[in-house]
Amino acid sequence: MLVYEGKAKRVYRTEEEAYRIEYKDEVTAGNGEKHDYMTGKGRLNNLISSGIFAYMKKHGIDSHYIERISETEQLVKPLDIIPLEVVVRNYAAGSIVKRLGLKTHQPMTPPLVEFFYKEDALGDPLLTDDHIAMLNLASVAEVAHLKAQALKINEVLTAMMKEMGLSLIDFKIEFGKDRDGVIMLADEISPDTCRIVDMESKENFDKDVYRNSTGSLIDTYRAFYKKMEALI
Amino acid sequence: MLVYEGKAKRVYRTEEEAYRIEYKDEVTAGNGEKHDYMTGKGRLNNLISSGIFAYMKKHGIDSHYIERISETEQLVKPLDIIPLEVVVRNYAAGSIVKRLGLKTHQPMTPPLVEFFYKEDALGDPLLTDDHIAMLNLASVAEVAHLKAQALKINEVLTAMMKEMGLSLIDFKIEFGKDRDGVIMLADEISPDTCRIVDMESKENFDKDVYRNSTGSLIDTYRAFYKKMEALI
Ligand SMILES: Nc1ncnc2c1ncn2[C@@H]1O[C@H](COP(=O)(O)OP(=O)(O)OP(=O)(O)O)[C@@H](O)[C@H]1O
Ligand SMILES: Nc1ncnc2c1ncn2[C@@H]1O[C@H](COP(=O)(O)OP(=O)(O)OP(=O)(O)O)[C@@H](O)[C@H]1O
Ligand SMILES: [Mg+2]
Ligand SMILES: [Mg+2]
Repeated sequence: MLVYEGKAKRVYRTEEEAYRIEYKDEVTAGNGEKHDYMTGKGRLNNLISSGIFAYMKKHGIDSHYIERISETEQLVKPLDIIPLEVVVRNYAAGSIVKRLGLKTHQPMTPPLVEFFYKEDALGDPLLTDDHIAMLNLASVAEVAHLKAQALKINEVLTAMMKEMGLSLIDFKIEFGKDRDGVIMLADEISPDTCRIVDMESKENFDKDVYRNSTGSLIDTYRAFYKKMEALI
Repeated sequence: MLVYEGKAKRVYRTEEEAYRIEYKDEVTAGNGEKHDYMTGKGRLNNLISSGIFAYMKKHGIDSHYIERISETEQLVKPLDIIPLEVVVRNYAAGSIVKRLGLKTHQPMTPPLVEFFYKEDALGDPLLTDDHIAMLNLASVAEVAHLKAQALKINEVLTAMMKEMGLSLIDFKIEFGKDRDGVIMLADEISPDTCRIVDMESKENFDKDVYRNSTGSLIDTYRAFYKKMEALI
């Protein structure tokens, strides 16, 4: 049974109380301004995000990920998604550069965690901790936990990218609660949801090649997966 | 010597190490979209903000205000202004309604404090506590102090408005540091910087009559000052 169809994935309920996520051959950017179908994109994102979640698990970060069951599908724990997009930034890029007048790739020390309201109709607005409490999206303790968890994930993901000769600029994650109320990393970690550049050449290994029309998305994700395969 | 000329006021250095603030007959709204001159506006804002700062002092809130020295001028302590617009909201109105999809006049319990970067070129963007630390605008302890101070000011100002039969929806304040690093309420508190409605009729007693072209600003501010005069 299909429980959710988004732009990048389809989520199915399975008999064994798991969700099956199918990664789609669809790419969008700029809140739907750009929109394309690319054969092989779903497969690459599924292979990559499965590999990243497996690496996370090995390094002490639990997530909804159970296993990859095909080239384009993975099995995950069904969660109540907390409607927050949690963004971690090691270097300034994208929206924050314009918003706060920063320099692109200026280091954020310590890494910056931002919360955005996952609400397309409002354009995913920035939230402060007080907004999150006011909107009843998460308690004060939960927000602190999400922030600490996001920074831990940043450490593991930064280390993984470093092993691949890459530098992690920023990324977006989502969290959900299982039926016992345990908060867990969910959704996807992939070049769709990260900004990653080559440590030497500063070449992009992420969706920015599509956002800015500076290269082939499929070639870029394939090259990223090649680097990752050597690692895992 | 003129040290700053803004849209609403001129700030002069005086011999006795104070600044003289002259309230101008100028009104603007929507980041300069609306712009007008109104005879008597400077006088009314000076009388009102002097009265409010005096009331604040009587109720334990120190500010830069020293004394009113003419119909349009007051003497204040010179401060290093912290480039934050601190907004306190008791009820939803204005930008936050659109931004977070709230209902106009929906109560905020507890009152919500927001910080905006006082930087016209960026359009005064919303800041989280972590942004404020990252931009070096104030330390973590200072932000906590500003928030507590803003909520205290809200209590006194709400009580004052109540005595006038008015309900305080929201307001914007600024803080500055004196040469000893002591943080103090600065700038102005007036119908230019507050949203205030009649408790019964819900009629506006603030700059919204000008923003939304629903009434005469001068008549509104004069009516507000009349209510205030009866009190002080
Ligand atoms: N373990 C999970 N349990 C339940 N829902 C999940 C889980 N993991 C991810 N999701 C949700 O499934 C959807 C995945 O679809 P996709 O990411 O393609 O959506 P989208 O088009 O990006 O829209 P949006 O992410 O804004 O909902 C997301 O809404 C995500 O929050
Ligand atoms: N005690 C003080 N010492 C130094 N500066 C002050 C003090 N009180 C207020 N100010 C500053 O003086 C200026 C007052 O001018 P006004 O409010 O008219 O400016 P504006 O056009 O609103 O522009 P902006 O407030 O964005 O600078 C403000 O910049 C305010 O921060
Ligand atoms: Mg999504
Ligand atoms: Mg001002």
